[in-house]
Amino acid sequence: MQYRTEKDFLGEMAIPAEAYYGVQTARALENFPITGYRPHRELIVALAAVKEAAARANAEIGALPGRVADAICQACREIRAGQWQEWFVVDVIQGGAGTSLNMNANEVIANRAIEILGGNKGQYSLVHPNIHVNMAQSTNDVVPTAFRIAAYRLAQGTLEALDQLIEAIAAKAREFDHVLKMGRTHLQDAVPIRLGQEFGAWARMLRRDQIRIERALENLLEVNLGATAVGTGLNADPEYIRRSVEILAEITGLPLRNAEDLVDATQNTDAYVELSGDLKTLAGNLSKIANDLRLMASGPRAGLGEINLPPRQPGSSIMPGKVNPVMAEVINQIAFQVNGNDVTIARAAEAGQLELNVMIPVLIFNLLQSLDILRNGMQVFRDKCIAGITANEERCRQLVENSVGIITAINPHLGYEVASRLAREAINSGRPVRELILEQGLLTEAELEAILNPYEMTRPGIPAKHLLG
Amino acid sequence: MQYRTEKDFLGEMAIPAEAYYGVQTARALENFPITGYRPHRELIVALAAVKEAAARANAEIGALPGRVADAICQACREIRAGQWQEWFVVDVIQGGAGTSLNMNANEVIANRAIEILGGNKGQYSLVHPNIHVNMAQSTNDVVPTAFRIAAYRLAQGTLEALDQLIEAIAAKAREFDHVLKMGRTHLQDAVPIRLGQEFGAWARMLRRDQIRIERALENLLEVNLGATAVGTGLNADPEYIRRSVEILAEITGLPLRNAEDLVDATQNTDAYVELSGDLKTLAGNLSKIANDLRLMASGPRAGLGEINLPPRQPGSSIMPGKVNPVMAEVINQIAFQVNGNDVTIARAAEAGQLELNVMIPVLIFNLLQSLDILRNGMQVFRDKCIAGITANEERCRQLVENSVGIITAINPHLGYEVASRLAREAINSGRPVRELILEQGLLTEAELEAILNPYEMTRPGIPAKHLLG
Amino acid sequence: MQYRTEKDFLGEMAIPAEAYYGVQTARALENFPITGYRPHRELIVALAAVKEAAARANAEIGALPGRVADAICQACREIRAGQWQEWFVVDVIQGGAGTSLNMNANEVIANRAIEILGGNKGQYSLVHPNIHVNMAQSTNDVVPTAFRIAAYRLAQGTLEALDQLIEAIAAKAREFDHVLKMGRTHLQDAVPIRLGQEFGAWARMLRRDQIRIERALENLLEVNLGATAVGTGLNADPEYIRRSVEILAEITGLPLRNAEDLVDATQNTDAYVELSGDLKTLAGNLSKIANDLRLMASGPRAGLGEINLPPRQPGSSIMPGKVNPVMAEVINQIAFQVNGNDVTIARAAEAGQLELNVMIPVLIFNLLQSLDILRNGMQVFRDKCIAGITANEERCRQLVENSVGIITAINPHLGYEVASRLAREAINSGRPVRELILEQGLLTEAELEAILNPYEMTRPGIPAKHLLG
Amino acid sequence: MQYRTEKDFLGEMAIPAEAYYGVQTARALENFPITGYRPHRELIVALAAVKEAAARANAEIGALPGRVADAICQACREIRAGQWQEWFVVDVIQGGAGTSLNMNANEVIANRAIEILGGNKGQYSLVHPNIHVNMAQSTNDVVPTAFRIAAYRLAQGTLEALDQLIEAIAAKAREFDHVLKMGRTHLQDAVPIRLGQEFGAWARMLRRDQIRIERALENLLEVNLGATAVGTGLNADPEYIRRSVEILAEITGLPLRNAEDLVDATQNTDAYVELSGDLKTLAGNLSKIANDLRLMASGPRAGLGEINLPPRQPGSSIMPGKVNPVMAEVINQIAFQVNGNDVTIARAAEAGQLELNVMIPVLIFNLLQSLDILRNGMQVFRDKCIAGITANEERCRQLVENSVGIITAINPHLGYEVASRLAREAINSGRPVRELILEQGLLTEAELEAILNPYEMTRPGIPAKHLLG
Repeated sequence: MQYRTEKDFLGEMAIPAEAYYGVQTARALENFPITGYRPHRELIVALAAVKEAAARANAEIGALPGRVADAICQACREIRAGQWQEWFVVDVIQGGAGTSLNMNANEVIANRAIEILGGNKGQYSLVHPNIHVNMAQSTNDVVPTAFRIAAYRLAQGTLEALDQLIEAIAAKAREFDHVLKMGRTHLQDAVPIRLGQEFGAWARMLRRDQIRIERALENLLEVNLGATAVGTGLNADPEYIRRSVEILAEITGLPLRNAEDLVDATQNTDAYVELSGDLKTLAGNLSKIANDLRLMASGPRAGLGEINLPPRQPGSSIMPGKVNPVMAEVINQIAFQVNGNDVTIARAAEAGQLELNVMIPVLIFNLLQSLDILRNGMQVFRDKCIAGITANEERCRQLVENSVGIITAINPHLGYEVASRLAREAINSGRPVRELILEQGLLTEAELEAILNPYEMTRPGIPAKHLLG
Repeated sequence: MQYRTEKDFLGEMAIPAEAYYGVQTARALENFPITGYRPHRELIVALAAVKEAAARANAEIGALPGRVADAICQACREIRAGQWQEWFVVDVIQGGAGTSLNMNANEVIANRAIEILGGNKGQYSLVHPNIHVNMAQSTNDVVPTAFRIAAYRLAQGTLEALDQLIEAIAAKAREFDHVLKMGRTHLQDAVPIRLGQEFGAWARMLRRDQIRIERALENLLEVNLGATAVGTGLNADPEYIRRSVEILAEITGLPLRNAEDLVDATQNTDAYVELSGDLKTLAGNLSKIANDLRLMASGPRAGLGEINLPPRQPGSSIMPGKVNPVMAEVINQIAFQVNGNDVTIARAAEAGQLELNVMIPVLIFNLLQSLDILRNGMQVFRDKCIAGITANEERCRQLVENSVGIITAINPHLGYEVASRLAREAINSGRPVRELILEQGLLTEAELEAILNPYEMTRPGIPAKHLLG
Repeated sequence: MQYRTEKDFLGEMAIPAEAYYGVQTARALENFPITGYRPHRELIVALAAVKEAAARANAEIGALPGRVADAICQACREIRAGQWQEWFVVDVIQGGAGTSLNMNANEVIANRAIEILGGNKGQYSLVHPNIHVNMAQSTNDVVPTAFRIAAYRLAQGTLEALDQLIEAIAAKAREFDHVLKMGRTHLQDAVPIRLGQEFGAWARMLRRDQIRIERALENLLEVNLGATAVGTGLNADPEYIRRSVEILAEITGLPLRNAEDLVDATQNTDAYVELSGDLKTLAGNLSKIANDLRLMASGPRAGLGEINLPPRQPGSSIMPGKVNPVMAEVINQIAFQVNGNDVTIARAAEAGQLELNVMIPVLIFNLLQSLDILRNGMQVFRDKCIAGITANEERCRQLVENSVGIITAINPHLGYEVASRLAREAINSGRPVRELILEQGLLTEAELEAILNPYEMTRPGIPAKHLLG
Repeated sequence: MQYRTEKDFLGEMAIPAEAYYGVQTARALENFPITGYRPHRELIVALAAVKEAAARANAEIGALPGRVADAICQACREIRAGQWQEWFVVDVIQGGAGTSLNMNANEVIANRAIEILGGNKGQYSLVHPNIHVNMAQSTNDVVPTAFRIAAYRLAQGTLEALDQLIEAIAAKAREFDHVLKMGRTHLQDAVPIRLGQEFGAWARMLRRDQIRIERALENLLEVNLGATAVGTGLNADPEYIRRSVEILAEITGLPLRNAEDLVDATQNTDAYVELSGDLKTLAGNLSKIANDLRLMASGPRAGLGEINLPPRQPGSSIMPGKVNPVMAEVINQIAFQVNGNDVTIARAAEAGQLELNVMIPVLIFNLLQSLDILRNGMQVFRDKCIAGITANEERCRQLVENSVGIITAINPHLGYEVASRLAREAINSGRPVRELILEQGLLTEAELEAILNPYEMTRPGIPAKHLLG
């Protein structure tokens, strides 16, 4: 391989001649061979947007020569369009608050801009990573700003997938509104409910998640670009601070605004903890739904067998014909992952010290992953599971009719103690409640018919209340 | 001890004659000797409010005889006023979704109401725990409703303590606005900042917590009273459902409302996960502040020594005169506890199955504890720590003047590479940056004076920008 | 109330005249009104043992006058026997690495020793909390040493409860060895298994927990008494260091030994993280068992209904006759709590800085709680749940006979693809596998009889292998 | 692209003609586009070893034709040597307990074996993924067995990195044994200690981690190959069960053994929770070391400045010459990640139900990641941080001499109360302790010289004890 030599204040290094990155990226590669995962594509795009905004603002205030600024902006646009991303090579877990990531961007942009200006890679007198590309910037404002943009944009996809999932569940709620089934509490037979009510409750629950996440995202629109090293804005012209964010808003199409207190915005990461907490809440809700589906679909013969999940793949390499609820299981696993990520994120956020949180790389990695896997998971969960669910209506009805729990409706008529005695007799003898009541002459057949109407039991009120009078 | 005999459908038990609780509470005592902790006082009060509201609503619709309702209401008012609370004896961790807690309340209220009506404890024909006190109710609507009220009210105290803490920090931000000190990133000397800016950033950060928690509490005002067993409202008259919540709002003074979807509201607990997540975010923020204070107050001689925390107690049983930052340390510990509680809460919430979350007792225990210890911690943190902090201004200034980090202001004037070289020379030789620059004839003394103005460095902009021209 | 005045280097305070504690405890009460929970009884007892051992060792080496030592030792013995424990009043969450707890002990012991010597409380010239009771000690060696003893002893009870639980489960494994039932993977019907095999697997799993916890406890027997402030043993005579631990071993009956490296032993808390991790593993295993029991006992009519858990209490305040698996549910909740505690413990341990971990109070609180609630939970789980489980053998057998999963045994005979086709046909048509095979002439009735022997399927090997030729 | 058609009992699919995987892998690709991460290389290698062992054992007992077995074995050896790994394409997070992963392996091996036998991909009559490659196997025994091997082998590298890190720290402990420095508790000046003692304590702490992890790995050597679907061994000949594990031990060079209870070994995953808990303990310990290093290296001028970490990269894109403790910071981040992973792992393990834990894919992903990043992190931490640490001896000594904490040695000579008064006077006045004592005539200069020997203070005992008389 061909190499060129680059140096920084720690000395010289050989850099692959074709590489768009430079010496500081090379050091990062040496220092941080941790996970093998590279920066999230959405983060690279956001970084390029930030660099472009900064260059334009610096050019406007006369700090950056127009020709250099133009080259930088072109390089950034190319990156945002998908080019040169293979040169963003630093590990997602890295020491240094994202300095390596920022320098990786500065170096790739500088070298591409140099080429645009007709120079050769490494000819930093034309465009310098620190002096020009990073002008008036610090890792400590650039990386959080790019991260916020990346998280915000990624979250739009997550929200869209959530919305479509809710729609699919709500459609099933309507479809199954008439399907009477046994309600269960403590996994024990309780009183009747309609299958549609169950789906409806899930849809409503997920709507709250939607609102939560949307609200949490609002905080991300406040960026600290211009804060530089510690939030005081040293070396950042006030006009630059204002304009760079305006331009960034224009480039990204997001209603970004300058953080009111740049010191606060530079050191604190609670907005991410809030968002992660809301993602965790969503994950827990999804997991609950997945668990319920797996329970109701248990069988086909030795389980509850109330619903059928669409078969997606042979479920066993040994048991012929077996089909498993794999799309629900993957949701559980995603939830566990998001739970773990939330712990990592909270730990990283709390570890900020004084003017900076240097643990932000691992925080970024986990938060973007949570957003990604929730989006992906919800998409396939809707398409390949929810949308195809069918109900075993006959089975559902039999379980209700056969149950003891319907005796709850007898309560107002015969009292809790009599009803309890009847229930235990029914359970112990295996006989129907109805039969026992008639046998003991407690109610007439007509009364029973009126009271033990399971469909009626799924609505507020006392069935056959007129009999109480 | 004297005993009376009570029975339920599982058989008879001897109950201490003086006990206001009955057979089901006695079973719970046998079954759940887990933590030794009894129900939270605020929860008992809320339960009594729910029972009173239910009794009044049931009386209004003619389901409960007025005399019985009146006795129940009086018993509930006595409990809310602090009486009989010693008879709420079930463990905070209990199987059964809070049935034991609900029955404990039903039994105590019934027995007290019986006394009011001139009967003897256990004479349930007068007032029956299930038939009268629990009329039209289920554990599954009563306990969540009471929990929401308890959490909401407790949270008001937490919010108040938070508000006062923010005020105290903001006051310090003003007091220390002029104190110049070294800013640090990565615990390494960075560029100057004002001590007031640091306190100001904390205050602003905590304001976000305030908003978050207030928003999360909104969800708690929606209650599922009337949902009964599985949210369908079986055995609860629609008029009762409406009126019981109206009356409950009146009793508690809270703008409670009926949940739109009682099935959802009965099985889902995401509102608590959201609140706990926000408390965790607050805890992390407080912990960050505590860590910063402990760092800045490190010393007195072999540490940073920038600030003094008020001495609260001798810090060592062996080292004379030692004083430790105990009020900050306890904040860290509270944060760790709240972090653990958040994991427990999320686990419990996710474990809901089908129509009910039966893990709610452990969830209640942890959430109320988080609210309590955060309130208590913030109160003492403000009074016994924040309010008494003083700054070592002289020490702070010396550290700035002696630092290399101020060279950042030289950047725009001499360029990043020259500045880097100077910085390393200064660090390696131990000599002042200023001296090196003069020695090497890079800037004049007058220029240096203008550029290296540390106070100027704590504001946005390029110090001595006019020299760049 | 009567008061006496005490002072320390921060000034004077009024102390209730009857109080055995003194000024430093009083300061702690002011500073840390956090949880309202007082020190664990087992910790108080261990502290008294440490203080007694120290006094005896100090007397032996001539540092402490015999009369003072004797009084201190008597006071300690009284505390160990249960007296004066009400005067240990500091909060479980407290700043200061346990200094308040240590001083609480020093003060109570000093005041009681003063009384024994005929003096009045507060007459510290007779016996001084720091000079005499705390002689050659620091919070930093006393509290960890006492904590280790307390945790070790408490863990014995936890281990005993675990052992008895395993015995009970193993007994059920034997009892149910002949009960054939459907095995399920993914909650979907798989192949037959015996109920005894399931219980046996749980017993074996829990045996691993036993071994783990026993091993983790070994580390606790190494104590750092004599390390004093930072582990260097400053002010602790080497003879004292050796003898104090010998005497402590004698008093407690535990094979305690001096830590090899006192600096390490003073600052590091990984032994607790290990133990907590093992408790978490146990909790997860118990939770898995509880979940399985709840699943298998679901019903009574609309669930799996394979086993019956003994009824422990009426399960519903509204649904008559309902009985819930409350003893299993409480195990789940305990597991969630232990999971949260583990997070808190790991956080607290990691937060140690330099020569000391000052977060140990919250760590102690959580670890002792985990030990307590696991012990309590396992005791009632065994007595009130496991021991009384019965099997619905008939139901279990029907589910096996009715299942499709038995077709797995056909695999070696007809091949995976034919078997898969048959399975899907059976599931879709609702017809028995057996019938389809005969109808299609794939096997004779005799062959089927040999192959589809469910009992045979619960043992390694290919059923009717001889037919494979 | 060219395609071939494959089918399973759910229907037909088009498979890229060149693909070594088949229809079931293709379904998994559709179903689980979750993380984008592919199976761990070590897991693929272990899977190939399992498949080879199974084929050989099946051939030995006459169940698999020799020619087919040979082709399968050759394919497996090729995979173990690194070939065809690009065809293991299923996502690390997948529903179905690893069925997709197992089928991916079965299909790749089958197709490669078909080629070896001269056939074309998809010609499964020659070698069938289920019938031949998966003979006598189930996902439920194959995947756990391969996972255990992969985790065990990966852990060897982690342990080796840990061992080398300990050696490097221990070397520094020796190198710095003479460096006297201030000990700190609560970040407050305590009493002197030697820098070597601090490094020594870390080394000793990490030795415990080594022992823990080694012990936890022991459990992984017990594999459930032969358990098939639910642990009963259905369709697995006892001779096959015995021989397959023997051969697997031979192939892998690991002392693998058959699990005593295959039902237990198939459904329970506590061995991983234990291992993860131990990795978390290690991570916490490493994080504590990293924190201490960052504290001691804080500065260069406005911090503690006791040690220097080797500079690894420019620390700031804006602050010239700044060098940050990036190698320590990355250790903290790794620890946070491992903490999060531990939560995910514990969640996944606890979610096992009845005969199987279907959440194992996410568990595998997280555990292998923890092993990887700990290994990678410890390697660079040793090479690029620990090995190059230097001490600022002069600075360390000055801080000791200037400190008040040395007054602790005065305790036995003048008593705690006098010493406390002197300490507060010194702190408040800023004067040396020594000067105050002399001024007040409390000790002579010669006595002081003997008592206040800081080096003496770092060893057990009372300095100048002979003066005590």
